[in-house]
Amino acid sequence: MDYERIIIGIDPGTNNMGVGVIGIKKNKAEVIAMDVLKLDKLTNHPLKLKKIFETVLRNIDHYKPDEFAIEAPFFGKNVQSMLKLGRAQGVAIAAALFRDIPVFEYSPRKVKQSITGKGSASKEQVAAMIQHILTISELPKNFDTTDALAVAMCHFFQKKADAPAGKTTLTGWKAFIAENPKRVSK
Amino acid sequence: MDYERIIIGIDPGTNNMGVGVIGIKKNKAEVIAMDVLKLDKLTNHPLKLKKIFETVLRNIDHYKPDEFAIEAPFFGKNVQSMLKLGRAQGVAIAAALFRDIPVFEYSPRKVKQSITGKGSASKEQVAAMIQHILTISELPKNFDTTDALAVAMCHFFQKKADAPAGKTTLTGWKAFIAENPKRVSK
Repeated sequence: MDYERIIIGIDPGTNNMGVGVIGIKKNKAEVIAMDVLKLDKLTNHPLKLKKIFETVLRNIDHYKPDEFAIEAPFFGKNVQSMLKLGRAQGVAIAAALFRDIPVFEYSPRKVKQSITGKGSASKEQVAAMIQHILTISELPKNFDTTDALAVAMCHFFQKKADAPAGKTTLTGWKAFIAENPKRVSK
Repeated sequence: MDYERIIIGIDPGTNNMGVGVIGIKKNKAEVIAMDVLKLDKLTNHPLKLKKIFETVLRNIDHYKPDEFAIEAPFFGKNVQSMLKLGRAQGVAIAAALFRDIPVFEYSPRKVKQSITGKGSASKEQVAAMIQHILTISELPKNFDTTDALAVAMCHFFQKKADAPAGKTTLTGWKAFIAENPKRVSK
């Protein structure tokens, strides 16, 4: 358990939230923990938010990550689903902010690109690559955990790429808008 | 400062967040505090979320409210704005969840209805009524604070109406969908 750096990856949704924790040693990543929080049986929306907040905070307090990476889609089917997703993201991010852990956001496309080399990769392709890179003997049944590990790995690769300049990149709205001018409604 | 109950009202936005704290004594409400957090000069989105979280938490720790009421629109111009708004709501709610304070959501229409008797009232009308009910000598320049006091008062009125049965009403998605079946996208 003597890691140089620990990264927690979160893939928040309104039905499930994936949590993946990786440890970096000698520039190599390994899985420390992976979990999925099932939210679909909770019909009460504030209770879902409470569960998300508590789970993220508990994982942070237990694994003491140095950085927090979150998969953050910028687009959804409709305004209601985006509002719900935004809230789920918000409470997860709040747990990191509360413990003063730097927050990094990556779009699903960026995560897929980073892990498989292809922004349009399927969840199966991402999971297979994560299993290979992190030498996971048995894959979890759902993709929430592999997606969470994927965003943590994406952040690790990102930081590796940035390392020579010592630059930290905070992706987010600004980066997204700069990269996708046509997808932003005025 | 010997109140029977203290309610904190939050009106979160991406540019400003209004905070209003009211105290109840002998079934009458009075203003304890009102404030506005300016976010428009912060260009970094995670930093905005951090400010919102810290401000809500600081107010909770300072005024020790028994209940947390938040104005929560369900509709917006586009998915980006709703995602941002959802995140702002999420971090504000997380601060309340973190301190185990019950969270109550009210739609803008419900707040206006409750304060002025008219769901379509203007912000000016809401502010004027809040000034009258709470005997505020001078109104703040912006509507964020009066909106925050309004959602706190809306919750106070709501709980008063429910008091005989001792019922707590958690308004939210379910209530909204039940009341507005036509406004929900399938």
